[in-house]
Amino acid sequence: MRLSGLAKEIFEHVRDLPIISPHGHVDPALLLDDRPLGEPTSALIRPDHYVTRLMRTRGFDYEELYFGQELDFNQGEAIFLDFARYLPNMAGTTVAYWLDEQLKDNFSLSYEEVVASPKGTYVRLSEALLSPNFRPSEILNRAKVAVLATTDSYGSDLSVHGEIAWKGQVKAKVRPAFRPEGLFDISQSGWDAEVGKLGAATGLEINSFADIKEGLKRSLDYFVANGALSIDISPTSYEAHHLEDHVVEDIVSRRMDDGIDVLTTGDAKAFMEHMTYLMVEFACEFALPITIHPGIIRNHHLDTYSKYGSDKGGDIPRQVLVTDALFEVLNRFGNSPNLKLTLFTVDETIYSRELAPLAGFYPSVFIGYPWWFIDSPQGLNRFFDAVVPQVGFYKLSGFIDDTRALLSIPIRHKMARSSEAKYLATLVQDGYLTEERAMGVARDLVTSIPSNCFSIKQ
Amino acid sequence: MRLSGLAKEIFEHVRDLPIISPHGHVDPALLLDDRPLGEPTSALIRPDHYVTRLMRTRGFDYEELYFGQELDFNQGEAIFLDFARYLPNMAGTTVAYWLDEQLKDNFSLSYEEVVASPKGTYVRLSEALLSPNFRPSEILNRAKVAVLATTDSYGSDLSVHGEIAWKGQVKAKVRPAFRPEGLFDISQSGWDAEVGKLGAATGLEINSFADIKEGLKRSLDYFVANGALSIDISPTSYEAHHLEDHVVEDIVSRRMDDGIDVLTTGDAKAFMEHMTYLMVEFACEFALPITIHPGIIRNHHLDTYSKYGSDKGGDIPRQVLVTDALFEVLNRFGNSPNLKLTLFTVDETIYSRELAPLAGFYPSVFIGYPWWFIDSPQGLNRFFDAVVPQVGFYKLSGFIDDTRALLSIPIRHKMARSSEAKYLATLVQDGYLTEERAMGVARDLVTSIPSNCFSIKQ
Amino acid sequence: MRLSGLAKEIFEHVRDLPIISPHGHVDPALLLDDRPLGEPTSALIRPDHYVTRLMRTRGFDYEELYFGQELDFNQGEAIFLDFARYLPNMAGTTVAYWLDEQLKDNFSLSYEEVVASPKGTYVRLSEALLSPNFRPSEILNRAKVAVLATTDSYGSDLSVHGEIAWKGQVKAKVRPAFRPEGLFDISQSGWDAEVGKLGAATGLEINSFADIKEGLKRSLDYFVANGALSIDISPTSYEAHHLEDHVVEDIVSRRMDDGIDVLTTGDAKAFMEHMTYLMVEFACEFALPITIHPGIIRNHHLDTYSKYGSDKGGDIPRQVLVTDALFEVLNRFGNSPNLKLTLFTVDETIYSRELAPLAGFYPSVFIGYPWWFIDSPQGLNRFFDAVVPQVGFYKLSGFIDDTRALLSIPIRHKMARSSEAKYLATLVQDGYLTEERAMGVARDLVTSIPSNCFSIKQ
Repeated sequence: MRLSGLAKEIFEHVRDLPIISPHGHVDPALLLDDRPLGEPTSALIRPDHYVTRLMRTRGFDYEELYFGQELDFNQGEAIFLDFARYLPNMAGTTVAYWLDEQLKDNFSLSYEEVVASPKGTYVRLSEALLSPNFRPSEILNRAKVAVLATTDSYGSDLSVHGEIAWKGQVKAKVRPAFRPEGLFDISQSGWDAEVGKLGAATGLEINSFADIKEGLKRSLDYFVANGALSIDISPTSYEAHHLEDHVVEDIVSRRMDDGIDVLTTGDAKAFMEHMTYLMVEFACEFALPITIHPGIIRNHHLDTYSKYGSDKGGDIPRQVLVTDALFEVLNRFGNSPNLKLTLFTVDETIYSRELAPLAGFYPSVFIGYPWWFIDSPQGLNRFFDAVVPQVGFYKLSGFIDDTRALLSIPIRHKMARSSEAKYLATLVQDGYLTEERAMGVARDLVTSIPSNCFSIKQ
Repeated sequence: MRLSGLAKEIFEHVRDLPIISPHGHVDPALLLDDRPLGEPTSALIRPDHYVTRLMRTRGFDYEELYFGQELDFNQGEAIFLDFARYLPNMAGTTVAYWLDEQLKDNFSLSYEEVVASPKGTYVRLSEALLSPNFRPSEILNRAKVAVLATTDSYGSDLSVHGEIAWKGQVKAKVRPAFRPEGLFDISQSGWDAEVGKLGAATGLEINSFADIKEGLKRSLDYFVANGALSIDISPTSYEAHHLEDHVVEDIVSRRMDDGIDVLTTGDAKAFMEHMTYLMVEFACEFALPITIHPGIIRNHHLDTYSKYGSDKGGDIPRQVLVTDALFEVLNRFGNSPNLKLTLFTVDETIYSRELAPLAGFYPSVFIGYPWWFIDSPQGLNRFFDAVVPQVGFYKLSGFIDDTRALLSIPIRHKMARSSEAKYLATLVQDGYLTEERAMGVARDLVTSIPSNCFSIKQ
Repeated sequence: MRLSGLAKEIFEHVRDLPIISPHGHVDPALLLDDRPLGEPTSALIRPDHYVTRLMRTRGFDYEELYFGQELDFNQGEAIFLDFARYLPNMAGTTVAYWLDEQLKDNFSLSYEEVVASPKGTYVRLSEALLSPNFRPSEILNRAKVAVLATTDSYGSDLSVHGEIAWKGQVKAKVRPAFRPEGLFDISQSGWDAEVGKLGAATGLEINSFADIKEGLKRSLDYFVANGALSIDISPTSYEAHHLEDHVVEDIVSRRMDDGIDVLTTGDAKAFMEHMTYLMVEFACEFALPITIHPGIIRNHHLDTYSKYGSDKGGDIPRQVLVTDALFEVLNRFGNSPNLKLTLFTVDETIYSRELAPLAGFYPSVFIGYPWWFIDSPQGLNRFFDAVVPQVGFYKLSGFIDDTRALLSIPIRHKMARSSEAKYLATLVQDGYLTEERAMGVARDLVTSIPSNCFSIKQ
């Protein structure tokens, strides 16, 4: 992003501060192995559904990505040439902007050079990515990543996190996040296996909802002891409603005894809403921050899902409503000093209408930065315009990169810092802030604000 | 707000024009007493839930505000120091901007000075606010307030309004607004008392809905005779639907005979929707403008409500829909030359989708300026961007300050005039208006436009 | 629109390129007659409900438009003087901007001159519009219209299109669009007549839904053979759901045998949703692009409708939802290379939340440019800001003028090209695109992008 004047000054003030990344999807095994990224297509393109979906929608066939296979040079190059062919159609997108910045910062290349000479670019990238400079630890250290959260099931023993710390190559504190979602949708055929996983991990025989709760608590104890940063959930909606014990036990026993077929849609919905409520209750009990990422229809195109699995760009948002949905849970826990509840959305309509009003009243409520589809300079600007006049900057989450793509982490945070600087400069120019205050806010946005929202001790 | 070039010229053209404030919440008793504001915290902070909620959400305990007690110097100072401590967290908010402008315009102080030396500031404010310059009449006269609407129940005899006029210290015409809301929610325990209040005020014995209607009509006659500017209602939604007489009588008689417990949710909803319809009908019959402010969940946090009462920052908006909701009532009254129906919202999604299309067709429909949570320079800009291309400026309400905070009245109108000037300057720069036309529109926005919308004769 | 710097350069680069207008409402009979537009009010004001509704909402009575009668000079002048009187109230609207641009480009007049001397303007316009320069063919040829779509019922034999081509005065290819909507609402009393029209046009005796399907297919065959550009539908919502044969046959036979009264609301809704589904299926089968324009309540004010008919400015939008509504049909056809499905909206909330995510995944899905109420420079800017960061420019429809007003066609496309240039210039200035790339995108937006979306061979 091109900045000038005061915006540039503010950006320079924060550009080199360490990165706090309290929510993301980097595979910790990658950090433990710590091998150079290697073949460019496997490293940069194939795993990034932000990119592949934009190729797909212009006619590219996912078959040609050979999911599940290791790519050799010829396959990698062929896909890369396809990518370069589709690249001009991505002009103006945030994905193209991230790619361009990655190429510039890491390889002194650009979007336009990939378009102009894809073969040459592929060769240059291939060579570069074999260098030790592109080991995960080097990438993270170079970017001054101070804290990096991963995403972990209750089934995980978190041993990888321990080993990463023990090896000491990665300077960032790599911290788990507790992701209990496998248990949320009781109507899925895989639910039994998830219950089994919870049982195996916690040494419990699980025959009831009470057992599930006990398992979750034991797992949470273990996660907290191992430095977990947050509970992360992604339910269908923001609805969070408590069920009486006998009601939830009845649903669970029918499910365990007679399978999916005896469940109604209402059963599954009520169960998920109870789980959402329960996770907020646990967040209080364990004094562990919780984030909610709702409103995404996963795997909208079933055929793509059955062929290639999830996370292939086929998740589509829908409307979410908050004010009524969280009424019950906020009345119960919203005032608790132990609760930090960060509300994310891809439905921008709730920023000014519901999230900012809630975050301006309930001490426990924070507003998540624009996420996923709206995680762009333009989306950030709309976000600030919608929420800052109501609640300022200190009830926001700070930027969340939400990515599994290592090289894009510094780029995304750079985008966020640039966008923050640009917005703050406008506030100064319009007479709402002094320059000094703006500098302070910019610094807080990448230090104390995320640290507070995720209870990170520095 | 810092303006330059043409925006500044347009603003200068209108900055000193009198203020028309056709909807607000100033207590008329304050104007009659006309004592200097006095102790700063009682005057500026404690009654302003825009401010106190932003302290609360960062950890401040409402207990420390001593609601319902008169504050002495020590208590006032202690709260003020807390306020100054929370102020940096409000950077970027409209509340901080209003405070900063109030401090500058009235006391040659600023936001940053409060942060830097709260004790000294408190002392200076304490002294200043004892001066006769800060009597309500002086504040309003200095701001050239020409018309000021208050908010009044059918129970009021409006004698205060008469006495204010008789004393003549306040140059503004202080005019009542008819607020029948106490009767809207038949499921509230206080409903009987409201019916009693209506009966007492109108000398009727009320035993049926027909009696309620008769009472409301008598009260409206009295309000119209005493210069009322509008009927103001704030129902849960925009739904307005007529009930047959026997249906509404049945609901009312069950409520009167057997209490709340015999009512269904449907009864209460239907009754409120009928009341909304009826108020539009009365607005026509009495040729009195009506404003609707829907979609707010009052007192979202019940615990705060039970401890401290309403208007403590705990009201939260939710989605509203208009096109279908007002279908019936607009088909019945929408074309009437007697009706002026101004539609407010805190749900910005309906500006371009529903409000502008309706206001561009129905002569009776006006669009209310951004209200409450979205009453900010940024909110005003989004509002103009959404509605002006469709309906221009002459079906808008003009700015509504909606406040009980006397010192913020001139500041809020200044913000609106600045925002209007800035937007109009952009239209000129983009080639859509001549400078002369823009100057004319700016002037109309603070003179003929609100006067027309609220039928104010000048 | 006033442009400067790079925005102006980009605009100059595309300003004189031919116009592709793949969706509009010009009456082809007008092109065949090819008489000069003549009397100004009949030509410019009375048929344009964008204009007349803005007069109406400020008090103008539609009675004075003499709908259905030919206007003489005196009547035309009287209406024009009224129009000039209401014009100042339209300051800032897109309608005023279009009028101003039309006056400037065609008559060296302006908005302000109409306001200042309406009589003189009317005389000048009257003279000008009698000149052969203002024959429809001249207007279109002067504007370099290359492709112009009309709107046609299955009842049309499309002979006018053939005659226009044969006469050769209009250089544009005038192409029909298939509009099957008369059959969508089975609860309308006119439905039987529409079925009859389909039967008459296709030589079928229609006694069942199978017959209706067969009729539609024959009609589509005929339209495709005669160069149809698209199927255009405007259902109440985006819901598209398949009904089993026996279910739809049951609804249709009850309707045919026993009339409207035996239908439930559910029947009519299910039937319309089935028709929407079916049209997408046909679009695939006939490889004909399809556009959906949903979410408009037609003729919101019934009294205006009964007096003056439809298209009088009384259509009002309401909320639409897409992600779930199109789940079924996109799972069935969304990946088909034969399908081009363009989704329009006047509900801006779905741009970033649903339309861009869908268009970024499904190869068949395109996003329609802002339409109707949001077809303004401001609306276009919000549109680009919402969708381009997600999907870029190549899954958009290109600009759609959607008009029946001949003189506004070049103006509207000029507005779109200006808005595109302005937005692209911002992307360059912010560092997201090279100038060269921006020039290329600007060119594609008026050439290959609409051609691809509507399968136009050039």
